[in-house]
Amino acid sequence: MGEFMTKTQQRPVKARQSTETFERRGPTTTDRDGGPEAEVILERVRACVDPELRAAVESLPPSIRRVALHHFGWQHPDGSPAPGGAGKAIRPALVLTAASALGGPGAREAAVGAAVAVELVHNFTLLHDDLMDRDTTRRHRPTAWSVFGDADAILAGDALQALALRLLAEDPHPASAAAAARVATCVIELCAGQQTDTAMERRHPGEVGLDEVLTMAEAKTGALLGCACAIGALYAGAADEDVAAMDAFGREAGLAFQLIDDVIGIWGDPSRTGKPVGADLAARKKSLPVVAALNSGGPAAAELAELYGTPYDGEDLQLTALAVERAGGRDWAQAQAADRMARAVQELARAVPDPEEAGGLLALAEFVTRRSN
Amino acid sequence: MGEFMTKTQQRPVKARQSTETFERRGPTTTDRDGGPEAEVILERVRACVDPELRAAVESLPPSIRRVALHHFGWQHPDGSPAPGGAGKAIRPALVLTAASALGGPGAREAAVGAAVAVELVHNFTLLHDDLMDRDTTRRHRPTAWSVFGDADAILAGDALQALALRLLAEDPHPASAAAAARVATCVIELCAGQQTDTAMERRHPGEVGLDEVLTMAEAKTGALLGCACAIGALYAGAADEDVAAMDAFGREAGLAFQLIDDVIGIWGDPSRTGKPVGADLAARKKSLPVVAALNSGGPAAAELAELYGTPYDGEDLQLTALAVERAGGRDWAQAQAADRMARAVQELARAVPDPEEAGGLLALAEFVTRRSN
Repeated sequence: MGEFMTKTQQRPVKARQSTETFERRGPTTTDRDGGPEAEVILERVRACVDPELRAAVESLPPSIRRVALHHFGWQHPDGSPAPGGAGKAIRPALVLTAASALGGPGAREAAVGAAVAVELVHNFTLLHDDLMDRDTTRRHRPTAWSVFGDADAILAGDALQALALRLLAEDPHPASAAAAARVATCVIELCAGQQTDTAMERRHPGEVGLDEVLTMAEAKTGALLGCACAIGALYAGAADEDVAAMDAFGREAGLAFQLIDDVIGIWGDPSRTGKPVGADLAARKKSLPVVAALNSGGPAAAELAELYGTPYDGEDLQLTALAVERAGGRDWAQAQAADRMARAVQELARAVPDPEEAGGLLALAEFVTRRSN
Repeated sequence: MGEFMTKTQQRPVKARQSTETFERRGPTTTDRDGGPEAEVILERVRACVDPELRAAVESLPPSIRRVALHHFGWQHPDGSPAPGGAGKAIRPALVLTAASALGGPGAREAAVGAAVAVELVHNFTLLHDDLMDRDTTRRHRPTAWSVFGDADAILAGDALQALALRLLAEDPHPASAAAAARVATCVIELCAGQQTDTAMERRHPGEVGLDEVLTMAEAKTGALLGCACAIGALYAGAADEDVAAMDAFGREAGLAFQLIDDVIGIWGDPSRTGKPVGADLAARKKSLPVVAALNSGGPAAAELAELYGTPYDGEDLQLTALAVERAGGRDWAQAQAADRMARAVQELARAVPDPEEAGGLLALAEFVTRRSN
């Protein structure tokens, strides 16, 4: 299990549990983290998804469009063109790779609109989450609310959700209605996850249960990855059980990602994470290893509860990290991540038994979880 | 045209141009304002739509559901039951009455889910608009953001939009995809309208053109009424040109409503409007009559521009109202309202030539515009 940690890379500036952290990592090399295969897949996906994504955004009314173009990195706040760089397109890649694995190149081609819709939904949630969390930076650029104000960011998010569901409603493919229903159901789960997350910040650390923080992480991180995979399967005309298995694959991989990301947030190498040691602990973030430690009972858990019960006042954060570790938070998170990844692989094998056909999805899951292959 | 004004009734507490003012008027008697027919239609619609609306809201996750239940008036913030009273259901009534007029009782019955979806969309926009406008009261109850905070109100709105589009995606009716596409397109227009409205507040009154304020009013008030009528027509299997005529009917009636509402906001009887004389003028609201007056040229327009250029400082508001009137704002708005209503009737007659079949829709339009029949 220690293998997980030796491979950890750059760390996002923000450490909250969230679905968006993939994008904010710095550039990666291709000899680790899911390997060159994932990089090739992602590049190919961006090449076919980006033009349609851009065309969809360009169809918005001017006042909404300028906020969205800024958010996607295509335009500076003053309206001048920007180089783009709208994230790594993990979710569209999952849609298209799942469609291809279960239905071949025809299914992949037919699912491009659905892949764009999933990316639009993801970005709608980013616009709203950034506002609620008062995050000022995303993808190395100022967030939409910090540039255009709250109202414009809310409205741009609302419009991106509508645009996503319009793309699906206008898609003549026989799977489009089922895909739209899944996307809408997923949005409701994303909202519930974000609600739990924002409400959790105000709660006493001792009151937060491990089950609810796992449910929250699954809702915030796993649900849309699972939805992306399931939609790919729907566009391939897959059987219901294969669609369900693909959803589970994406969810489990998403949870594995979140667990590893939280471990890195505490024990990651600052020179690689790009943030000071223990920033998550100083922020009293109720990350998965911390909540596991707090719920473990025993003296280390009590010590951690006391530390977390008051705001950070300059104490030695390495001692806090040690308390989490002594209370079993690190081991638990690493074991859970391995378990989730194993489940993900199992679900994938159920839906796509041929290892060669499943290779792309596995590479993407490994890329997401930064687990070397 | 003076007839419009002699019939004006209670006035919403808030006077901004918005789609929600129908609900916040007090109870009306049935011998005016569209007559008893509209009241009967609305009551019948609520009886069949409310249970499905409630069931849809109950399907949300608990943390989102409690915000929505409060917003719809079914639950107090502490979770105890409330008597309900989720608005007059104008939009569902337009969906069902249009379906019935163009396709008979079968179409009406088939369109109930779509009517619920339209009401959910309306309420999603109310949740977000209240937050952006920092309105503290809706339907005589505290607004969701003021009770639960910004994040919960944003998330509940997001979830209601998703729920609306999920209902349509899961609806097996052949018109459901076209209806979903229309709803999504309408949401984007609503967002653009709200964006213009919030941005307009920060602009100098002299810079606001009549065309853009009319476009904004159409987007904020007309678009969803038009969408509701068009969806009813879609569920009736109507021809494209009849769907378009029904959309135009709803839009024109919505604009007529907004024009009349703005006139009442300046010259309405305070004992009936429930707000002090000239509150809209004191708030420097860029309502339709005011913008028309400002754009009219001449000494009264200049006088009004000077007044509006600085915040209200206790001047005699009747003099401000007189300036709007002398600059032609009142006459223009009344003539425009009559013109819009005439166009609405014309569009209705195009789609539903039989006056008896069109009677329900006409009664609803008259009810909305508070024009006696």
